[in-house]
Amino acid sequence: MTQSFPFSAIVGQDQMKQAMILTAVDPGLGGVLVFGDRGTGKSTAVRALAALLPPITVVAGCPVNSARLEDVPDWAGPVDETLAERPTPVVDLPLGVTEDRVTGALDIERALTRGEKAFEPGLLARANRGYLYIDEVNLLEDHIVDLLLDVAQSGLNAVEREGLSIRHAARFVLVGSGNPEEGELRPQLLDRFGLSVEVRSPDNIEERVEVIRRRHAFETDHDGFMARWQAEDAALRTAILEARTALAGTEPTEEVLTDCARLSMALGADGLRGELTLLRAARAQAAFEDTAITRDHLRSVAPLALSHRLRRDPLDEAGSAARVARVVAETLP
Amino acid sequence: MTQSFPFSAIVGQDQMKQAMILTAVDPGLGGVLVFGDRGTGKSTAVRALAALLPPITVVAGCPVNSARLEDVPDWAGPVDETLAERPTPVVDLPLGVTEDRVTGALDIERALTRGEKAFEPGLLARANRGYLYIDEVNLLEDHIVDLLLDVAQSGLNAVEREGLSIRHAARFVLVGSGNPEEGELRPQLLDRFGLSVEVRSPDNIEERVEVIRRRHAFETDHDGFMARWQAEDAALRTAILEARTALAGTEPTEEVLTDCARLSMALGADGLRGELTLLRAARAQAAFEDTAITRDHLRSVAPLALSHRLRRDPLDEAGSAARVARVVAETLP
Amino acid sequence: MTQSFPFSAIVGQDQMKQAMILTAVDPGLGGVLVFGDRGTGKSTAVRALAALLPPITVVAGCPVNSARLEDVPDWAGPVDETLAERPTPVVDLPLGVTEDRVTGALDIERALTRGEKAFEPGLLARANRGYLYIDEVNLLEDHIVDLLLDVAQSGLNAVEREGLSIRHAARFVLVGSGNPEEGELRPQLLDRFGLSVEVRSPDNIEERVEVIRRRHAFETDHDGFMARWQAEDAALRTAILEARTALAGTEPTEEVLTDCARLSMALGADGLRGELTLLRAARAQAAFEDTAITRDHLRSVAPLALSHRLRRDPLDEAGSAARVARVVAETLP
Amino acid sequence: MTQSFPFSAIVGQDQMKQAMILTAVDPGLGGVLVFGDRGTGKSTAVRALAALLPPITVVAGCPVNSARLEDVPDWAGPVDETLAERPTPVVDLPLGVTEDRVTGALDIERALTRGEKAFEPGLLARANRGYLYIDEVNLLEDHIVDLLLDVAQSGLNAVEREGLSIRHAARFVLVGSGNPEEGELRPQLLDRFGLSVEVRSPDNIEERVEVIRRRHAFETDHDGFMARWQAEDAALRTAILEARTALAGTEPTEEVLTDCARLSMALGADGLRGELTLLRAARAQAAFEDTAITRDHLRSVAPLALSHRLRRDPLDEAGSAARVARVVAETLP
Amino acid sequence: MTQSFPFSAIVGQDQMKQAMILTAVDPGLGGVLVFGDRGTGKSTAVRALAALLPPITVVAGCPVNSARLEDVPDWAGPVDETLAERPTPVVDLPLGVTEDRVTGALDIERALTRGEKAFEPGLLARANRGYLYIDEVNLLEDHIVDLLLDVAQSGLNAVEREGLSIRHAARFVLVGSGNPEEGELRPQLLDRFGLSVEVRSPDNIEERVEVIRRRHAFETDHDGFMARWQAEDAALRTAILEARTALAGTEPTEEVLTDCARLSMALGADGLRGELTLLRAARAQAAFEDTAITRDHLRSVAPLALSHRLRRDPLDEAGSAARVARVVAETLP
Amino acid sequence: MTQSFPFSAIVGQDQMKQAMILTAVDPGLGGVLVFGDRGTGKSTAVRALAALLPPITVVAGCPVNSARLEDVPDWAGPVDETLAERPTPVVDLPLGVTEDRVTGALDIERALTRGEKAFEPGLLARANRGYLYIDEVNLLEDHIVDLLLDVAQSGLNAVEREGLSIRHAARFVLVGSGNPEEGELRPQLLDRFGLSVEVRSPDNIEERVEVIRRRHAFETDHDGFMARWQAEDAALRTAILEARTALAGTEPTEEVLTDCARLSMALGADGLRGELTLLRAARAQAAFEDTAITRDHLRSVAPLALSHRLRRDPLDEAGSAARVARVVAETLP
Repeated sequence: MTQSFPFSAIVGQDQMKQAMILTAVDPGLGGVLVFGDRGTGKSTAVRALAALLPPITVVAGCPVNSARLEDVPDWAGPVDETLAERPTPVVDLPLGVTEDRVTGALDIERALTRGEKAFEPGLLARANRGYLYIDEVNLLEDHIVDLLLDVAQSGLNAVEREGLSIRHAARFVLVGSGNPEEGELRPQLLDRFGLSVEVRSPDNIEERVEVIRRRHAFETDHDGFMARWQAEDAALRTAILEARTALAGTEPTEEVLTDCARLSMALGADGLRGELTLLRAARAQAAFEDTAITRDHLRSVAPLALSHRLRRDPLDEAGSAARVARVVAETLP
Repeated sequence: MTQSFPFSAIVGQDQMKQAMILTAVDPGLGGVLVFGDRGTGKSTAVRALAALLPPITVVAGCPVNSARLEDVPDWAGPVDETLAERPTPVVDLPLGVTEDRVTGALDIERALTRGEKAFEPGLLARANRGYLYIDEVNLLEDHIVDLLLDVAQSGLNAVEREGLSIRHAARFVLVGSGNPEEGELRPQLLDRFGLSVEVRSPDNIEERVEVIRRRHAFETDHDGFMARWQAEDAALRTAILEARTALAGTEPTEEVLTDCARLSMALGADGLRGELTLLRAARAQAAFEDTAITRDHLRSVAPLALSHRLRRDPLDEAGSAARVARVVAETLP
Repeated sequence: MTQSFPFSAIVGQDQMKQAMILTAVDPGLGGVLVFGDRGTGKSTAVRALAALLPPITVVAGCPVNSARLEDVPDWAGPVDETLAERPTPVVDLPLGVTEDRVTGALDIERALTRGEKAFEPGLLARANRGYLYIDEVNLLEDHIVDLLLDVAQSGLNAVEREGLSIRHAARFVLVGSGNPEEGELRPQLLDRFGLSVEVRSPDNIEERVEVIRRRHAFETDHDGFMARWQAEDAALRTAILEARTALAGTEPTEEVLTDCARLSMALGADGLRGELTLLRAARAQAAFEDTAITRDHLRSVAPLALSHRLRRDPLDEAGSAARVARVVAETLP
Repeated sequence: MTQSFPFSAIVGQDQMKQAMILTAVDPGLGGVLVFGDRGTGKSTAVRALAALLPPITVVAGCPVNSARLEDVPDWAGPVDETLAERPTPVVDLPLGVTEDRVTGALDIERALTRGEKAFEPGLLARANRGYLYIDEVNLLEDHIVDLLLDVAQSGLNAVEREGLSIRHAARFVLVGSGNPEEGELRPQLLDRFGLSVEVRSPDNIEERVEVIRRRHAFETDHDGFMARWQAEDAALRTAILEARTALAGTEPTEEVLTDCARLSMALGADGLRGELTLLRAARAQAAFEDTAITRDHLRSVAPLALSHRLRRDPLDEAGSAARVARVVAETLP
Repeated sequence: MTQSFPFSAIVGQDQMKQAMILTAVDPGLGGVLVFGDRGTGKSTAVRALAALLPPITVVAGCPVNSARLEDVPDWAGPVDETLAERPTPVVDLPLGVTEDRVTGALDIERALTRGEKAFEPGLLARANRGYLYIDEVNLLEDHIVDLLLDVAQSGLNAVEREGLSIRHAARFVLVGSGNPEEGELRPQLLDRFGLSVEVRSPDNIEERVEVIRRRHAFETDHDGFMARWQAEDAALRTAILEARTALAGTEPTEEVLTDCARLSMALGADGLRGELTLLRAARAQAAFEDTAITRDHLRSVAPLALSHRLRRDPLDEAGSAARVARVVAETLP
Repeated sequence: MTQSFPFSAIVGQDQMKQAMILTAVDPGLGGVLVFGDRGTGKSTAVRALAALLPPITVVAGCPVNSARLEDVPDWAGPVDETLAERPTPVVDLPLGVTEDRVTGALDIERALTRGEKAFEPGLLARANRGYLYIDEVNLLEDHIVDLLLDVAQSGLNAVEREGLSIRHAARFVLVGSGNPEEGELRPQLLDRFGLSVEVRSPDNIEERVEVIRRRHAFETDHDGFMARWQAEDAALRTAILEARTALAGTEPTEEVLTDCARLSMALGADGLRGELTLLRAARAQAAFEDTAITRDHLRSVAPLALSHRLRRDPLDEAGSAARVARVVAETLP
């Protein structure tokens, strides 16, 4: 079995990496939506980040990766009392998935053959304490996206039907990728993702050669390649863990609050989720850099937090990122 | 477990708060439809209002939250005779919900495995004596909306099929939210909601900063924040309870009746539900203010009771709220 | 439990009330289709009429409201031999109803668990000897409307499938309401309704105030209000019962027959159901007035019997009712 | 129970009556398609014709109306050996009918509860030796119409699936009615009906008055009316039975064959079913009139046999019947 | 029971008869597609050809018509060891048929009631060693046509699902009929049929009269008519059987191969199936005439083998057959 | 049973043959997509290649073709310990296939009748260590294509639902064929195929004659034909096996890496899969030729690796292959 590509060895794609690191620092940021070209390593990056994070400690055999014996749900039946380490889970949501497969459902087979009403856990159970990755989220049915966003926000999967009344923890970071040319998410759903980034294929020759060189080495000299990048990944892991600790003590000033509101209003972003996420992302960024929150942090995370919340402006042909950049330059000079 | 955001701490959004308070005073008003931008706290407001209201006393284990032992339905089987307090229920209606899940249905699993015909209660059972919240009501199928409005009006859920003949109390306030840009309700259904309000993101900087400040405090200093708003919520709770008592003695004069009819005719509202709701909302508003019903109350509630009942007028480009305001000014000078 | 709004207390809406009274005098007239604005009390009127009629005497426990023990169907199993009184039934047909639920079907649950082939009666069984009300009939699937019209005409519900061969009496008056702006019935189905009326919101202030006043009194002083209208409802009930008796002796003259044919031809109404219904409605009207059938009766019921049977005339922009009125004036001067 | 309206008492509609009589003389003619206005008594005419015909003698309890004990299918189980008389069956095909209900199917309930593989006969079984009436045949799914035409032609219903291999006689005359304005049959299916007629509401006052007078008498003086028409129906019944006998001896001359071919070619009718049906219908008509086949008979039945088989001619605005009439006049002067 | 119309008695339609005879000589030619008017006797011709062929000898009771005891599939259970003769089977594929019914499927009823996993053979089993006829093949779903062509080509029906792994011989000639005006087959599917012919109603009076005369005789003097044509059918049968023997020794010269390639290229037929079928059909034709393959044979079968494989040429308004004739004349002068 | 057509005997179609040989050398290349005319032998080529490869050694009775006893999955139950040889499997994916049939699913029949939860393996199990062929991949549903590409890439089929948690090896080369005129694959899916080729009917007479000659010989003199081509196939087999060994030692120079990147950028191919595949295909080609990787290899495989990854350029009417050729000539002169 080969290991994931090292997160540090990903060439370029700085905004995508920044967004993913922020969700590792503050998983409550609300997920990331990655727009862009096919073949730009979106799926690779999620797997790489999860592989970078320390393993999670779980009760062996617990279907929802519980950290403590008392958190194992009743319906799981008796489990071993031993603890085990598992890699941070990354769960893929297949195209065409049904709601039952996502949330879990009545185990029909056990009901029919043994007359027992048992719960068959779904993908949300497996994603607890990890990442849930949706490739081409724009092709998923709205009510599934809605459900995923609800659970991602509440951290709780509640299944109430067919005589079942099941609840279990389902705390995960939702990462969706999508190509806007193939159908769009409704603004209502876009808004519920915390951050968004746009990725493109690199457009200079050196960077592309470097990508090929590293992929080729990864495939033909796997062990040597992994060893070479181990130190960088370890340093990043340490930085993330320290940032998680620093987060609680990182408080915004009144100026920061006002800057958040001014920026959102200047951009005409719908609703209030934009400025709340802006503040929260800036705080995670500051914690990662181990400093107080400054206007620089707002500038750095504004494209991530606001680009997907702009109203469409038929008179402004600039892309969302350019509009955010322009308004940031004017509003926070 | 965190508590709901305090109702009193919601910044602005006065019409939405007014409409919700009126349904708390007179739950027979017929529900509220909240139009508007995403991220404007519609769902938060419903939860906040329910959390503000006093807990309800129920027979422990009763699936429909019955207040008295004699009201527990037969199909619930034996329940404890003890009474318990529960928060006012708020039930979310998920997108793509089926009729069976709403009304309850035959418990297939029990029928197959034990040969018993048992009723599996649905979301309507859980919503009894509380609130039923539908996010994006315009995306729900018409026959489900229809069913919800029928039950909301009659207070009774009657399930007659598959050999079941079940009835149970289902008295709740229906709150629907919708973004009119994403598909409209049929006028037939619009008309059956009692009140409607439109909400927008605040457009002044102070208000927005205040929103961010309060949300940030709510998340990072939860207990302190809740303590700070406890008194205001308590005062509002008292006012609502007193208004419920005052309601019975609040009678309209002939002038008020005539004003209701004149206003509706001047607006060309279809049918007669508009003026009947106008009268009822004005009465609840008067009871809340503990005064007799005056023309001021009609003015205050007219936008809530009538905006969603106007015929579309292709020659009048003003929005519904503006048309109501203009006609109120002309008709009740 | 509150009682229905008194039929006599309905303000205005004379044609709708006339059509409903005619179906009470001669239930064989073929149902009523009520077009028009939402909120104009269509459902209220049906319930009010049924409440006005004397209760029916039924074999206690008979699922099809049989008047005599020998009429109780076999599949009902043993029933009490006692007779009981029940209010004239009014059955609502919900949107999205299935054919099985309408006609009744095999009781799957009993078949599976007890191996018995039992019939589970449907809405048609409950409607026998009463009214079946379909709100928004234009939204119902064609094959259901067709089936309802078939049964309404034959008075017999015959279910022949899944090994069942069930027949039971299903004599009821079909009342459908619809808003023509939301989709039309096929002419084929329109034609099979006996009568049609169009209702509108009242357009004078006194009438509207009167509506509000009566509804408010009905809701806040229920018992007093019911008592006040008791006499008028009783008088109307008596008139209907006497008209039923008079019906058999009310025969048309040759002039009346010729007038019927001339009117239909002048209007270009498709087929022959128009003139047959015209004659039958005029006869019921005459019986209600306790006189012989005159040209006045034809004039009075022509709009009810013919408006929904006109071919569309693209050169004639007048509504159906106006066209009928004009042709009546010309043809029966 | 009221009896059917007498066939002889139908006013006008001569072509429809002629077509139906021809199918009674030679049931192998291939069914009748009746186009035309709603309310013109199509369904009434089928029922009237069937009621006019002598009852059929059947083995009591045989589900396919077998005439002899040895024709009762195996799957019917044991039946009485007694013979009984039944009216000629008329079976209605409801809109939205499934293939299983038409052909019969596995009796699921018996398979599940008793483990027996039993056949549940369908509408085709009940129609054997009678009439199958499809109202609005253009609204039926193509594969059902196809199946009905196959069985009507072969006289055999063969069900081969789900482990069943059932065959039973299903000889019936198919009568379909349709309003061409509401969707058309594919030419492929049109062609497989033997005869077609178009019916219209009568356009002279005397005929319409006569219709009303007779329907009114039928409803209000049922027994008297039936007695009055008994003799005419009996005479017609005798004529039909004699024609059936005469049929075998009625042979076409070479001239008649050539006339058939010339007429079809002149009309450009697709395929060869037209001229074959033309010959067969002329023969039945001649047998009914008890003469040899002449050019007059061809003229009389040509509209019935050919109108529905014309190719559409965009340059010829005359209706099908007019085109047939013109070509008949030119070709058979 | 009446017999099929004699193949030799079919009037005209020479190309259709030629194509069918070729499939009888070499069943590996890949089926025939018959385009054209309704009522031109396509179905009659298939049945007539099958009736003309000598009966097949089969193991009595074998569900796939096996010739030898060792070829009876396991899943058929025990069968008689006796041999029997059966007519060459002709199986009709009904419109709307499901894949399960075509290929056979798990016998659900036996699985449920007896716990046995049994195979329920489908239409392909019954068609083995005979003809499969699809009326209106253009109305069948693509994946069914695809499946039929796969099995027709491989001679093997393989069902692998629901725990079944069944294989049985399914060698048959596929005959499809279609009216191109009612929807087209995808070129991908067209190409997989070996031969195609177009049929039209005859356009001279003598031929049409002859058709009527023979059909009339067939129906009214069945036995005499069959006897009259017996000799001609027997001669044709002998010629086919001799041609089957001659086939192996009929080899193409180099010139014939080159002619095949030149003709296909000149016509621009897609792919290579055209010329391979051209060669194979010419060979069967030569064997039927008991001579070596000559250019005349290519000329004779080219329309059958190539017409349905032309690319559409928007600048060439001539029909396919005309284009083939023109190119044949130019290329093989 | 006849054998496959020999791979070496395929006339022309050099790019298709080259692409297939490359997948035999390095099965990790990511499958081949074959565009082009019907009847050009796409399916024949896949079968021929598989027949050319040496048989695989498998544990007898293992449902996933495992090479070693310890690789047989648990759910397969006990199997023989003997090893057997099987031809390299080629599995066809039928149109309209379901996801369950592809991945395998719960064996419903065993669950119902024996109460056992057993896995019924699907097409992916049978394809392990071989080829999976999809004819008309553009007609398959997106989510199935997606799933196939996922499994092809990971080499693992993971089924997690209905209480099953099954994993088994599924290493296969995916070969899809499609006619771009009949609907296109989404670019997202196109990109995930490793190589693509376009095939056309040959356009010179000698090649076409040669095709006919060989097919005719293959069909009429099967054994002689197979013997004649045996040596060429054996030589090719040896070359492929040697190339597999040489692959590990074939490393790219820096110049080759830079050439890959320059070529992709010059073509504006989306994402980075293009250049990675380009490198990998060039390496397999070099190993097949038993040399170091040179610019010539890049030139040779560039059309295979890049043609299907170009963005559409509305101003450039040249086909993809021509655009690739032009850019290769300019970039790698």
